[in-house]
Amino acid sequence: MSSSSEPGLYECMSTLRAVRRLRPDPIPAEVLERVLQAACWSPTGGNQQPWRIVVVQDDAGKQGLQDIYLPLWQDYVVGFLDRIKDTPPDEKAQWHKVADSGNYLADNLHQAPAILVFCANPAFMAITDAGLDRPSMVGGGSVYPAVQNAMLACVAEGLGCTLTTLHCRNESAVQELLDIPTEWATVAMVPIGYPVLGGHGPISRKPPADMAFADRFGQEWPG
Amino acid sequence: MSSSSEPGLYECMSTLRAVRRLRPDPIPAEVLERVLQAACWSPTGGNQQPWRIVVVQDDAGKQGLQDIYLPLWQDYVVGFLDRIKDTPPDEKAQWHKVADSGNYLADNLHQAPAILVFCANPAFMAITDAGLDRPSMVGGGSVYPAVQNAMLACVAEGLGCTLTTLHCRNESAVQELLDIPTEWATVAMVPIGYPVLGGHGPISRKPPADMAFADRFGQEWPG
Repeated sequence: MSSSSEPGLYECMSTLRAVRRLRPDPIPAEVLERVLQAACWSPTGGNQQPWRIVVVQDDAGKQGLQDIYLPLWQDYVVGFLDRIKDTPPDEKAQWHKVADSGNYLADNLHQAPAILVFCANPAFMAITDAGLDRPSMVGGGSVYPAVQNAMLACVAEGLGCTLTTLHCRNESAVQELLDIPTEWATVAMVPIGYPVLGGHGPISRKPPADMAFADRFGQEWPG
Repeated sequence: MSSSSEPGLYECMSTLRAVRRLRPDPIPAEVLERVLQAACWSPTGGNQQPWRIVVVQDDAGKQGLQDIYLPLWQDYVVGFLDRIKDTPPDEKAQWHKVADSGNYLADNLHQAPAILVFCANPAFMAITDAGLDRPSMVGGGSVYPAVQNAMLACVAEGLGCTLTTLHCRNESAVQELLDIPTEWATVAMVPIGYPVLGGHGPISRKPPADMAFADRFGQEWPG
């Protein structure tokens, strides 16, 4: 594709939001292939590509994932609603919309035409923060860029998607369901499909003035 | 920007490769701002945006990072060269090129016009794989999408860049140098600048046929 005919980079980035209401309509094979190709282009430490995607499209697999996900979501949303109960009314209304769409996803996950389960094998990674006295994150550096590429491609292709990780709380069930060897971690579950509502669109994010610092942490970024 | 005038999504993804030889020429403020904005657009768990970027452009900061990085690289590259010593000649030659460009970066890191140090605070994350009997990665899911967005923006802006994490092996020194509070992990260091050589271009990655599975792990993806 030439740069004049394909979707613009910044346009895709600035409209990538969680789309949790997905139509069951099938995704054409060539569209899905472009999403997977986008993931494959991502950089990884030492170019090891230490991740794989299980593209779950069969009914038994999707229903199995929904059976695993729903109770985890139901448990999670209780705490979520508790944490937001004292936020200002406007903000609370927004969070309730998020909870509603999360409820919808949890109830209808099996209806998505495809669920991408990203796996990653730490044996093929140099996890430089493994020995530190904090949660390790560096392993994610060789798989979440692939997830992000796939999700940006979804925007370009008109597909809704959202990154979920709650299934990790019952990872062994996911591994058993999808024949994933125990040495492969399951680090992201991304249901994709054509959106029921508007799909991707405006997002609410803090700007560089709030997220960047000049030279030292805490030093205002002039922007 | 309209989709017809801005760089194409797939074009940027498919040419994002590690560019380790950077010219010291300054980056215009508006160009840097677009790179930071791209990072800010990234999705994060619960939209918490639990990351920050320290944009290091001052000589003392850049020299300090180079002083930390160089010995870590020198230590790393010994093992790297040992691991590749029995690979086939063609492949070995490729890996030696990578080592050479890594050596160049380690010797010249302080010459890059800007070094982006991505920090992340686990207190603002729901790390769903924290209790598992494997390295945790999910925390990275709320920061490496931002790193990937920034790097894709670098491609769009003609800036070279590469994702490095070796500094984590001496994270406390980085935190001290850049006044980063100890609760903020330093999960990526991305030097950026205009390329000495060709910059971004063709990449070598396994395709979906090798990276994706159909319905179950290990089941061939038809592609």
